[in-house]
Amino acid sequence: MREESAKVRECESAKVGIEEGSAVRTVAIAGLGLIGGSLARDLAARGVRVFAWDHDGAAMDSAIRQGIAHPGVWDDAPDVIVIALPVLAARTFLDRLIDRLGKEMDGVRLVTDMGSTKASIVRLAQARGIGDRFVGSHPLAGDHRSGWDASREGLFRGARVFLSPTPSTSDDAMRLARDLWTGVGALPEEVDADDHDARLAWTSHLPQLVSSALAQALAGEGIARGELGPGGRDVTRLAGSSPQMWAEVALDNAGALVPALEAMEARLREVRHLIANGEDAPLRDLLARAREWHRESG
Amino acid sequence: MREESAKVRECESAKVGIEEGSAVRTVAIAGLGLIGGSLARDLAARGVRVFAWDHDGAAMDSAIRQGIAHPGVWDDAPDVIVIALPVLAARTFLDRLIDRLGKEMDGVRLVTDMGSTKASIVRLAQARGIGDRFVGSHPLAGDHRSGWDASREGLFRGARVFLSPTPSTSDDAMRLARDLWTGVGALPEEVDADDHDARLAWTSHLPQLVSSALAQALAGEGIARGELGPGGRDVTRLAGSSPQMWAEVALDNAGALVPALEAMEARLREVRHLIANGEDAPLRDLLARAREWHRESG
Repeated sequence: MREESAKVRECESAKVGIEEGSAVRTVAIAGLGLIGGSLARDLAARGVRVFAWDHDGAAMDSAIRQGIAHPGVWDDAPDVIVIALPVLAARTFLDRLIDRLGKEMDGVRLVTDMGSTKASIVRLAQARGIGDRFVGSHPLAGDHRSGWDASREGLFRGARVFLSPTPSTSDDAMRLARDLWTGVGALPEEVDADDHDARLAWTSHLPQLVSSALAQALAGEGIARGELGPGGRDVTRLAGSSPQMWAEVALDNAGALVPALEAMEARLREVRHLIANGEDAPLRDLLARAREWHRESG
Repeated sequence: MREESAKVRECESAKVGIEEGSAVRTVAIAGLGLIGGSLARDLAARGVRVFAWDHDGAAMDSAIRQGIAHPGVWDDAPDVIVIALPVLAARTFLDRLIDRLGKEMDGVRLVTDMGSTKASIVRLAQARGIGDRFVGSHPLAGDHRSGWDASREGLFRGARVFLSPTPSTSDDAMRLARDLWTGVGALPEEVDADDHDARLAWTSHLPQLVSSALAQALAGEGIARGELGPGGRDVTRLAGSSPQMWAEVALDNAGALVPALEAMEARLREVRHLIANGEDAPLRDLLARAREWHRESG
């Protein structure tokens, strides 16, 4: 696959990618939300021909009117297909794409997604026979805002991007994935899909759900966010994130996330017991260890 | 009390305060941490004579060397005594101050503290017979850093400050407290001490402890803060706050805080059950309500 592609597609222009043969000329993006939309903007600005699908007609119109995207029909198979949809929707999309395109998929050198979980989609790509051309992507970018209107050029500059190959990802596909991301200023890192999900349950999904749970607790007490100080506003900022996206991530990563939530509940219970029992020194120690962690680990 | 004071102290110069007779010429501050130090800087910059006590010799030396504070001896009683110490230490200090100064306290027109709880110190001031000259202050300023080195001019500009009177606070003392804060650019609001503590358990103390508990959970899993995305870093920022200060606040406000922590645990449990049982729609609804709260209430 890799040898063929390298021969068929000569490097007509170094648009994205610096290694010979790796240039990306056409990218099809499913989903023009914050992530897909920002990637479309960056690629278009670099002269890549971007095709897009989005069920939101207004986003499509805006992307086309601004000269960023073309509607989702192409003469030749695109070099890269990017699935920038919530994790469950991304799997459904990938499944249907393979059903529909069939042989046409052969011209595609890389299929990648942008989801916050990697194991399930990597397994699906492998099972559906496109493991050689699939690399899962997870850019650590964006914020609690979502949608095309929140998308912007430069979103990925300096951002870490986790890349999870399948068991049979080709060198060509992996190189293209790296080039796609370095081309928009991001910092790709390869990581096993299962390891990724286990780690992200703690580093990303747990903080997200803690923020949402706190928002719920405050809302239940009739407290407005405007009453919080700057610190409390920090803690509840993530509660503004997309419910659809995060529900799908949480359910997809339930296996790793449920123990993380249990650990968090246990810590809160411990804090509560110390306070209820007036245990001054152990409470101070606990808070001191939390501050130590904050200081030492960046 | 008020009449006398107004007569005795004529408005020599309008240093802090705009109403006639309310000018503050000398302020004694106990504690040159983030809050006390910043107030000292603001007052000194406005020409107020600041006396200071701090058990940290380096902070005292620095404040004196910079011409901000004088060591804690005065010829005449200061107009205002500010207790900028953690809440338990503030009560101990107030108790001893009244024991030691005795009659000398008569010349003092306002005693105020800076703590995050108000009920206990307001009760103590009333019980110790200085209720007429006492107003509790709680500036919503500062961040997770602490100590003299973190103090700075302008910290209180635009900050809300809760003022909690005793049952017998004089008009003069209340006016001085307002003037002290408006003089450094803050926005004072009067609030009953018990109401203050009940509200702050939710708006401030709960977010603080949630952030520290999350830090503990992550530390226990060997996750470094540097591995978190920008959102996760927001949620754990408050974990860097002073353990001593927050342990004292939490224990002092245990009555209101324990139910708040229980409510937070219940929300987390609810989230965890929905995820463990794969309940897509209710999970999405819960996250959507959290986002609604984030959007609607600022």
